[in-house]
Amino acid sequence: MTTTPTVTTGPLPASTKVFRPGEIHSDIRVPMRQIALHPSAGEPPVTVYDSSGPYTDPGAEIAIERGLPRPRDSWIMARGDVESYDGRHVKPEDNGFVSGDRLTPEFPIRHRPLRAQGDRAVTQLAYARAGIVTPEMEFVAIRENLGRKAIREKLARDGESFGAAVPDFVTPEFVRDEVACGRAIIPANINHPELEPMAIGRNFLVKINANIGNSAVTSSMAEEVEKMVWAIRWGADTVMDLSTGRNIHNIREWIIRNSPVPIGTVPLYQALEKVGGMAEELSWEVFRDTLIEQAEQGVDYFTIHAGLRLPHIPLTVDRVTGIVSRGGSIMAKWCLHHHRESFLYEHFEEICDICRAYDVSFSLGDGLRPGSIADANDAAQFAELETLGELTRIAWARDCQVMIEGPGHVPMHKIKENMDKQLAICGEAPFYTLGPLTTDIAPGYDHITSGIGAAMIGWFGTAMLCYVTPKEHLGLPDRDDVKTGVITYKIAAHAADLAKGHPAARTRDDALSRARFEFRWEDQFNLSLDPDTARAFHDQTLPKEAHKLAHFCSMCGPKFCSMRISHDIRAEAQKEGMAAMARKYREGGDLYIPAPQEA
Amino acid sequence: MTTTPTVTTGPLPASTKVFRPGEIHSDIRVPMRQIALHPSAGEPPVTVYDSSGPYTDPGAEIAIERGLPRPRDSWIMARGDVESYDGRHVKPEDNGFVSGDRLTPEFPIRHRPLRAQGDRAVTQLAYARAGIVTPEMEFVAIRENLGRKAIREKLARDGESFGAAVPDFVTPEFVRDEVACGRAIIPANINHPELEPMAIGRNFLVKINANIGNSAVTSSMAEEVEKMVWAIRWGADTVMDLSTGRNIHNIREWIIRNSPVPIGTVPLYQALEKVGGMAEELSWEVFRDTLIEQAEQGVDYFTIHAGLRLPHIPLTVDRVTGIVSRGGSIMAKWCLHHHRESFLYEHFEEICDICRAYDVSFSLGDGLRPGSIADANDAAQFAELETLGELTRIAWARDCQVMIEGPGHVPMHKIKENMDKQLAICGEAPFYTLGPLTTDIAPGYDHITSGIGAAMIGWFGTAMLCYVTPKEHLGLPDRDDVKTGVITYKIAAHAADLAKGHPAARTRDDALSRARFEFRWEDQFNLSLDPDTARAFHDQTLPKEAHKLAHFCSMCGPKFCSMRISHDIRAEAQKEGMAAMARKYREGGDLYIPAPQEA
Repeated sequence: MTTTPTVTTGPLPASTKVFRPGEIHSDIRVPMRQIALHPSAGEPPVTVYDSSGPYTDPGAEIAIERGLPRPRDSWIMARGDVESYDGRHVKPEDNGFVSGDRLTPEFPIRHRPLRAQGDRAVTQLAYARAGIVTPEMEFVAIRENLGRKAIREKLARDGESFGAAVPDFVTPEFVRDEVACGRAIIPANINHPELEPMAIGRNFLVKINANIGNSAVTSSMAEEVEKMVWAIRWGADTVMDLSTGRNIHNIREWIIRNSPVPIGTVPLYQALEKVGGMAEELSWEVFRDTLIEQAEQGVDYFTIHAGLRLPHIPLTVDRVTGIVSRGGSIMAKWCLHHHRESFLYEHFEEICDICRAYDVSFSLGDGLRPGSIADANDAAQFAELETLGELTRIAWARDCQVMIEGPGHVPMHKIKENMDKQLAICGEAPFYTLGPLTTDIAPGYDHITSGIGAAMIGWFGTAMLCYVTPKEHLGLPDRDDVKTGVITYKIAAHAADLAKGHPAARTRDDALSRARFEFRWEDQFNLSLDPDTARAFHDQTLPKEAHKLAHFCSMCGPKFCSMRISHDIRAEAQKEGMAAMARKYREGGDLYIPAPQEA
Repeated sequence: MTTTPTVTTGPLPASTKVFRPGEIHSDIRVPMRQIALHPSAGEPPVTVYDSSGPYTDPGAEIAIERGLPRPRDSWIMARGDVESYDGRHVKPEDNGFVSGDRLTPEFPIRHRPLRAQGDRAVTQLAYARAGIVTPEMEFVAIRENLGRKAIREKLARDGESFGAAVPDFVTPEFVRDEVACGRAIIPANINHPELEPMAIGRNFLVKINANIGNSAVTSSMAEEVEKMVWAIRWGADTVMDLSTGRNIHNIREWIIRNSPVPIGTVPLYQALEKVGGMAEELSWEVFRDTLIEQAEQGVDYFTIHAGLRLPHIPLTVDRVTGIVSRGGSIMAKWCLHHHRESFLYEHFEEICDICRAYDVSFSLGDGLRPGSIADANDAAQFAELETLGELTRIAWARDCQVMIEGPGHVPMHKIKENMDKQLAICGEAPFYTLGPLTTDIAPGYDHITSGIGAAMIGWFGTAMLCYVTPKEHLGLPDRDDVKTGVITYKIAAHAADLAKGHPAARTRDDALSRARFEFRWEDQFNLSLDPDTARAFHDQTLPKEAHKLAHFCSMCGPKFCSMRISHDIRAEAQKEGMAAMARKYREGGDLYIPAPQEA
């Protein structure tokens, strides 16, 4: 390789990356983003959750051929329960049998993989159950708080959480407890030491996932790494690599070595590539080998479609859109062809044994999710969910971390049933949904049809929302689509946090609204989810720098600006003694309450 | 005037405008859009609601200097309760005192205005109460049905309507009854005979409004007419002209003469222009004159901020964003300056008398709507709502049609309270909300933050949703922003119809989903809310015409396509006798239900 691809780096506007140390584990450095406000605000910086990794840190030297620093190495080794070994050698089929110029080069550094010693469980769940607060857990606790300790006196709790129990302040012990009971996961493969740990659970901030991945025709390693960096820059908490084309092994290695967020995959996609795309040729042996291949690379969670069983398939025959999950349709085809129960279901315990040896979390796939409004909440979907509940208990019995995937296409009135059933059937394991899309009639805008459903199901208790881009159903997302999808889902997740009554969620809304009311335009841009777009939209109408100090906006012009008039009112009220007016009003004095003139 | 501006005309792809005649009133022609499907579908065309007017009718000759045909002329005259008169003459202040080149030319044809004879009420509400089914009501009934009669046997009702009572089939008598009890309005000024009547009410399809309007600096007559045509092309059911700049009278005349949808205004904006933008200079006399000016032009509904009263103002002092409604802030300033009760409130009965003489519907403004999450559902907002309830009863007593405006910025968990209170306090008068925006932190994406809230409040019972464009809070919407706002709100409205269980709403979703499942790409584009964007997105990845017949899509490629695999499964199932399999499964035969291997 002669050229080093570049990725997007540099801080967001007015933002500084700060690091908080641990108290139990002094060597951990938890990143947060502080957004500075204009001095006229007289307010401290606003601290926000930062999933963007070292790429937004001007102090970090980025070179994707070296990969990111590996802070978790020492944490993992300190536990004394792993061993390094040679690992599986890359086979030609791992990269779709390409060679020569068409082969994506291997990542330049080969790290020897780790695995559990003997039969030991090296999962966060196992440690949590043993009462151990790992560095990962403390990292998560500090990360979730965002300086909440400082402001908790000021904020009254206000929300409807539907049984979630978001604490005022997240302690490391609270994280341990949530992980121990399976209500949260920390996806953190021991072979992904570059990771900045994060939690997925109903009592934490709602998270979002962005999908990337090459396909048959397109994309290179450099593009995929940049897509990951770009997605986390705008707020993706995890990234799934859904590649189905060639070079799948080598591209994944580049992604993981450069990813500060958990990487998820659907191992079935690569397994299918290895058997030439013929579903019926799949076997447990090929699949098992793929799991080990990916676990050694450091994949943090696997989507496993083990809930789709042979007897479920007849339930899909009268559906309007059949089986729309790729993994689900592949397994259905295999089951029908062989007239046998799914090998994923039959070998589920062995899959657990692999996951527990590397701490790969399960994302139990919903192969029978509805692909249309007509098919929402049908017998096939809920039959599979029952199986997912059964598999959750099996995985938990083996100390494996589990989350559950959910739909899909669901009209608004059927969304809550999905959440309620999932909580009941899967013992409160975190729910991870795709949207759901609330109508089928808007291809080209499915980030919006699904953003509506995502906000609602996030409110009801879904722990992570899988983004949908404007290209859904139509084509492959480009850079702009990825950003639009991520921002839309940050909106949905944040709207959910607000509605759940997360104790600090409103901090940023209030800071932005005060900036808006006080015409601090720069602060308004900087506090927004996408400062670049906010600024560009403003400048389209009022391009001059002076307008950013103007006490009016482009919609109304100076005379009509309601916020400006509100300021006049406030000034007048202070002059007149508004408090006195208000008191008279409350006392029922008739100066301010003319008697009704109408009967 | 030497050049005739052009507007966007021509049908949407695969679409034909059809007209249904009335049964009671044989001369009415109700437009609908039929979307033809590919012959291989073996399905009839899909009929959809069509707000686009003659502009999408290839048989219509469009010339904006002539205006649209005036079919309601004969309906109105046939009632024998109006008189034509000279009308008010245009005054220099009506157009902001501009002259010469800067003056937008008057519309070339001057129609003599109509008004009620003597003290008669010429409102749809008055007719409805008198038991009269007007042509407007029958038009609405036919329009709402969309061929529902033909399919009602096939569709089971499925939804949660929160007390709404959408009938299986809308009869003219049902429309009359809904209007008579105030639960629906048909905004239809007798001076707007170009109108294609539509209803706003909880038991009808959820409607959307798009705002247009020039401001201090920008826009011309031609641009504003085109913005209106463009907005209704994509589905806006009503259009509000919120102009605040010069030429306000003449531009409005061009818009109304060319508008097949109801036009709403905020008369206070023009009144303020007339007094040089000094709120304290406003008077009842200037305002009254403006109402008559606009009523004579044919404005179909007026936003009147009569609910904001002097005693409410102290309640806003501790708000984060004060008063954000322009109309509200203007009235608050007037009230404080004069230390007097609002002249809108004090003269409300006289306003009713004007509205009843032209059938201008009220849109009672929420001058105290919250401008931030922090201010949602506060005392100021709900105090004003109580007054709006009081005003509703006054207007109804004078046979005036009324809807109620609602917020604003509201987190998800506080949305339903808005709907519930509005229904209770305002006697089920239709609710008309702006969004609501579910978070403050995403300027540049407020069509999405608000689309989430709009879908939810539409489901809960809001009758019309006022769109928000991506430029909200930042700048003036351009053509693309208007389209994005309209499509986003069509999504929200349709998602709401689906969730309410509207009997025919799912027809289009199901047709599109079948097209998707059968790889009828052209049908999928044509059935979507925005066929142009859907096609363009598809073609970015797979540009060749042949790909539109391909049995796979660009996300997966041929091998991985889950829908293709589903077809294989279905074929295999037919071969194997899936029905027999399903029966065995239901009977509990163990061929298809291996005994659980786990405890």
